[in-house]
Amino acid sequence: MGHKDQMSSSTPDALVSPRTPAAVLTVSDSCSRGERVDVSGPAVAEALERCNFHVVSRSVVTDERTAIQEKLIELCGLARLVVTTGGTGVAPRDVTPEATAAVCDRLVEGIAEQMRSAGMQKTRFAALSRAVCGVRGTSLILNLPGSPAGAIESLEAVMDLLPHALELMAGRTEHG
Amino acid sequence: MGHKDQMSSSTPDALVSPRTPAAVLTVSDSCSRGERVDVSGPAVAEALERCNFHVVSRSVVTDERTAIQEKLIELCGLARLVVTTGGTGVAPRDVTPEATAAVCDRLVEGIAEQMRSAGMQKTRFAALSRAVCGVRGTSLILNLPGSPAGAIESLEAVMDLLPHALELMAGRTEHG
Amino acid sequence: MGHKDQMSSSTPDALVSPRTPAAVLTVSDSCSRGERVDVSGPAVAEALERCNFHVVSRSVVTDERTAIQEKLIELCGLARLVVTTGGTGVAPRDVTPEATAAVCDRLVEGIAEQMRSAGMQKTRFAALSRAVCGVRGTSLILNLPGSPAGAIESLEAVMDLLPHALELMAGRTEHG
Repeated sequence: MGHKDQMSSSTPDALVSPRTPAAVLTVSDSCSRGERVDVSGPAVAEALERCNFHVVSRSVVTDERTAIQEKLIELCGLARLVVTTGGTGVAPRDVTPEATAAVCDRLVEGIAEQMRSAGMQKTRFAALSRAVCGVRGTSLILNLPGSPAGAIESLEAVMDLLPHALELMAGRTEHG
Repeated sequence: MGHKDQMSSSTPDALVSPRTPAAVLTVSDSCSRGERVDVSGPAVAEALERCNFHVVSRSVVTDERTAIQEKLIELCGLARLVVTTGGTGVAPRDVTPEATAAVCDRLVEGIAEQMRSAGMQKTRFAALSRAVCGVRGTSLILNLPGSPAGAIESLEAVMDLLPHALELMAGRTEHG
Repeated sequence: MGHKDQMSSSTPDALVSPRTPAAVLTVSDSCSRGERVDVSGPAVAEALERCNFHVVSRSVVTDERTAIQEKLIELCGLARLVVTTGGTGVAPRDVTPEATAAVCDRLVEGIAEQMRSAGMQKTRFAALSRAVCGVRGTSLILNLPGSPAGAIESLEAVMDLLPHALELMAGRTEHG
């Protein structure tokens, strides 16, 4: 989409209306060991750029709770929106939701519900996603499933809510 | 609505079929400091009276977790249904759900889901409400959003469930 | 249904394609005291057999949190799927969800949401069910309501998800 080029950080537009910094974290043992190419991470980053976020970091981490938590804390220091992909299911090594909840001050259940509800219109198995969304300080952490299609569908299901959530979190909006 | 007058506590009807006592708590820094008139609290109280509850207390508290908790505990001593308005969003001072969960024995997730689901038919941002509903002893605490329209819509979305929930909580109904 | 007989454990078929062991636990003070005949437990067991599970255990326990937890732990040693019926509401002695959460490593919120959502198409009061679904080791524990109709409806609302969940939990499926 041409829109992306217009908003890239090297254009004068970016100086006028700075874009919100975002980070993408792929959670995957096999990607982390180089046994599989990370397709979901780049796809999520591209979707975020199209929606006017500035992706300042992309990284990969193993499905280890402590490693994920450390990475999430680091990324919340760099970005207002931290999006993970992978590790949200019910397999033994799916621990991304637990790691996310552990570093968040509060969870936003409605965003998780909305991702599952939208996902189930494509596949019933979206009900098995344990993806959460939570607030850490002034950063929002959003879990997406590991498959590229599932990740993008989940992101699109809640994308319209994210800028408003980030504004409220920064205390920039009073609710009437 | 004329219905309200018919059911006010001074009519003989009230002596025949006593209404369930309810309390309304407005959670708002600005209302608490007198910087803003509390519109939601009176609107919620009126809606409860129309639905045959007897509003025995209306009060306002700041967005402070400890203050909210103390007030909730006090109100559960006075009323079977305690309804809050305000402090349910993702802004830094929105702590009503945390205060509510802290004083509840158990949460009723389905009521919170139903409020969000109904709210999203009006505005997508209803997904950002973290409002909860929980049981403390034989009292039910229900969080509503801070805006008058949002509060009334959320209340109406679950109003039909509340009398049955209160009966079950009092042990007056056996499920087949 | 004749299907059930074909799949019973004494047929040669069972040796060829072994069925997943399941256990059914009725949580009810009155059934446990013999004051009421347990209708839901047998109905749930029959539904599971029809769906190709092998019901290896059926038991009844009182609405006591500790007793339920001990029974759940025991049954997870016998079966990959443990289904409870009863104790999911908001009455004072409804503690099955708390007992279940206490013995689970993780909850699968989407399955609980799906049961409530499907249930509400029959009766609005399904919103008051606090039933949860959780993972303990490689076993899945699923709470159903106490009424026979409610139990079967809830089970049918998520039955198609259970075999896939059990496969993922055993690490037998990689998500793309």
